[in-house]
Amino acid sequence: MSTWNRRHLLGMTDLSRKDITDLLDLAGQFAGVLDRPVRSVPTLRGWTVVNLFFEESTRTRISFELAEKRLGADVVNFSASASSVKKGESLRDTARNIEAMKIDAVVIRHKSVGAPYYLTQQIDAAVINAGDGMHEHPTQALLDLMTIRHHFDRIEGLRIAIIGDILHSRVARSDLWGMTTMGADVVMCGPPTLLPKHTETFPGTWTTDINEALDGADVVYALRIQRERQESGLFPSIREYTQTYGITTDRMKLAKPHAVVMHPGPVNRGWELSDDVVDAENSLILRQVTHGVAVRMAVLYLTAGRDPGSIQIGKHTE
Amino acid sequence: MSTWNRRHLLGMTDLSRKDITDLLDLAGQFAGVLDRPVRSVPTLRGWTVVNLFFEESTRTRISFELAEKRLGADVVNFSASASSVKKGESLRDTARNIEAMKIDAVVIRHKSVGAPYYLTQQIDAAVINAGDGMHEHPTQALLDLMTIRHHFDRIEGLRIAIIGDILHSRVARSDLWGMTTMGADVVMCGPPTLLPKHTETFPGTWTTDINEALDGADVVYALRIQRERQESGLFPSIREYTQTYGITTDRMKLAKPHAVVMHPGPVNRGWELSDDVVDAENSLILRQVTHGVAVRMAVLYLTAGRDPGSIQIGKHTE
Amino acid sequence: MSTWNRRHLLGMTDLSRKDITDLLDLAGQFAGVLDRPVRSVPTLRGWTVVNLFFEESTRTRISFELAEKRLGADVVNFSASASSVKKGESLRDTARNIEAMKIDAVVIRHKSVGAPYYLTQQIDAAVINAGDGMHEHPTQALLDLMTIRHHFDRIEGLRIAIIGDILHSRVARSDLWGMTTMGADVVMCGPPTLLPKHTETFPGTWTTDINEALDGADVVYALRIQRERQESGLFPSIREYTQTYGITTDRMKLAKPHAVVMHPGPVNRGWELSDDVVDAENSLILRQVTHGVAVRMAVLYLTAGRDPGSIQIGKHTE
Repeated sequence: MSTWNRRHLLGMTDLSRKDITDLLDLAGQFAGVLDRPVRSVPTLRGWTVVNLFFEESTRTRISFELAEKRLGADVVNFSASASSVKKGESLRDTARNIEAMKIDAVVIRHKSVGAPYYLTQQIDAAVINAGDGMHEHPTQALLDLMTIRHHFDRIEGLRIAIIGDILHSRVARSDLWGMTTMGADVVMCGPPTLLPKHTETFPGTWTTDINEALDGADVVYALRIQRERQESGLFPSIREYTQTYGITTDRMKLAKPHAVVMHPGPVNRGWELSDDVVDAENSLILRQVTHGVAVRMAVLYLTAGRDPGSIQIGKHTE
Repeated sequence: MSTWNRRHLLGMTDLSRKDITDLLDLAGQFAGVLDRPVRSVPTLRGWTVVNLFFEESTRTRISFELAEKRLGADVVNFSASASSVKKGESLRDTARNIEAMKIDAVVIRHKSVGAPYYLTQQIDAAVINAGDGMHEHPTQALLDLMTIRHHFDRIEGLRIAIIGDILHSRVARSDLWGMTTMGADVVMCGPPTLLPKHTETFPGTWTTDINEALDGADVVYALRIQRERQESGLFPSIREYTQTYGITTDRMKLAKPHAVVMHPGPVNRGWELSDDVVDAENSLILRQVTHGVAVRMAVLYLTAGRDPGSIQIGKHTE
Repeated sequence: MSTWNRRHLLGMTDLSRKDITDLLDLAGQFAGVLDRPVRSVPTLRGWTVVNLFFEESTRTRISFELAEKRLGADVVNFSASASSVKKGESLRDTARNIEAMKIDAVVIRHKSVGAPYYLTQQIDAAVINAGDGMHEHPTQALLDLMTIRHHFDRIEGLRIAIIGDILHSRVARSDLWGMTTMGADVVMCGPPTLLPKHTETFPGTWTTDINEALDGADVVYALRIQRERQESGLFPSIREYTQTYGITTDRMKLAKPHAVVMHPGPVNRGWELSDDVVDAENSLILRQVTHGVAVRMAVLYLTAGRDPGSIQIGKHTE
């Protein structure tokens, strides 16, 4: 049995290999639903979800919203800019008030590490982490794992290179934990100023050498350049970054012949990935987006306490 | 028979004791629905509600939205900042255009006193006042009454102290009318600059003496300090206000031993209420939030012309 | 057979007389639905629409949202200000990402001419143009045609005067094409600086003389004055415009006795239309708004590939 109690999804460090495998199996079933003419499975009718986004996000919010609506849940969006947060209300009071409205689940994005965990201490509703500070972004890691498994039919033993601003990336952290748990050989690569200080406390191989990172890679996973980081002084110029760490068709030749390209989106074309790499046949970037909805449906279904064995998604049951 | 025609809910002054009692009885049934695993009762399917908020409000808007969705209505949100109002369109034209889209009900919050009444003169849709200027906020008063009745099993004969900036508070006005109608003994208390000029035109007892207000109170209802009022010069410093009118555990000893604390939210912790008072066992603040959704479901149900006698909410009928 | 493939609605120039007639017939059926107590026809359940608005619009967005929800579709709103567009993502990448989430239709408003067409080249989802730059706004033209046909029981042979800032108006362009296709006699009228340069490339009669335009008109269609155009130097003062081109009760006497007044909304009362003209019995302005929802339901229904012959909207089938 797994340690994940299925009440919450806070981070990839909480999930065992069996947890992840079960979840990806279920997500695969939901992906099948998304290819049907009728894409909804109203198994969560009468269930209410609040999307509590304290940081702006279009893609992740829309992906969750679609997952929620296709499961038939009632959805309320709550963004920080329009909220009582402006009036100085604490996260705790906001959370307890939302719960008092009899919400079943909260999908939260917050700039503070640990905000989702803190929520679980304050409220009884299921909590799903949609990104907390530089900590974790577990549904991103799960959709990445789903995409890799869907393409290679396995994750174990694959060599995966994650390249970019690792220091500030919750995607990199969640992917590292998830991929390692699934038995992949992960190499983390970026400029020295954009790696964490104590890399020895993390799994994986760490390097600043892009050639070493790409050598023999099955998956090349480029992180997004955050322009705002440049002002911090930690970041080289974009031109310099692109020359040293940007993934081009040429550079991809260092990876395995069948290697694929992934990215959490949205891509800065011409920066971390060249245009032709983004649109190449071996780019899985749009497939990641599709899997995002399926993975989030699976996460919602499980945190709602539904039994994956009893799921009836073979046909539309209205 | 009551004078309330059930087409609109404009203010507490329109409601008789029987109206309020009937509505709270129905809200009690909806509160039962909110405690079920499946919280929706799609009795308003095919019915369309527009939430027309010309003033920012997260809690009230989300509470209404949940009530609407749990009744199965189609919901469209319309906030002033994103609207044609910017283009200089009048409330009348906005309303008539919305109605032309065949809307069944409009939930309106507006800075002008009487805007909801004005709407009823312009359109045929049901109008529910979600707060108009310093005038009324009837669903807040109804949820307050529901919370008090739920706790004490009655309202009549209770002594209720409403404390704070009464001059600018539509919550205070609606509560005063509703509580008085239900037979409570209401005492209104605040700094002299924050009481209306002609208090003799209102029911209730009026005082600036916090000790007098709290003496023998069953319910201590603290209003929210609006920071923006301070700039008006009417307001003492927050420190001074808190010292004189802030509700602390010590001050609560002046009230009856079993007295409860209420607040319309969001609380400025440490200002109008001390931290320990907010979180004490006799604080009904979160219960108020829960009852808010139930009361709004009842209001929507009745303004939709549904017969409360025929309501089938004993089970989920999909 | 028509050239319109029913996959997309990009502009009125794509539609034949039969296309328009069929669509208005279907919209008439949906208008009947909107007059029922239960206004929803869940024929598009499990179908997902994204409202992708890169320009602010309350009325058009709400009208589409109501149409989508009344057809039972899942609806996600995506406005430019809250989107990755801020992060520099291109329309192409935004579109492809949305499609990867398995969206069935995109309703797009964009400041660039041709953006909806461009979308159809990038994605498989149905694309409905909700206004592109100064090019087309086809659902506005369709609702105008529906309103005219509903009132006069025909369009052919009617004399329609479109008055105002034609140069910048996508409404004027779409109406001109649609009305001409349907056999109306259209006269376009405005100040010389606000007419396109090569009017000979358009159908219809063109004039700067308001008296000539109104003479014998069955329909007087006033365009909205865009205040922001004034800064461009092209626009006369509002006072001067109103004196020369504003439609008053007096000026309406130049048109036929039974002539009607129309406007795309929101009206600047006292500018392009006098107050009494807006509220006169022969004003169809609110009827246009009602027909807008019905027309959009018909457009969605057809772009979803549904067969109008099989529509069952005689009763609510849940």
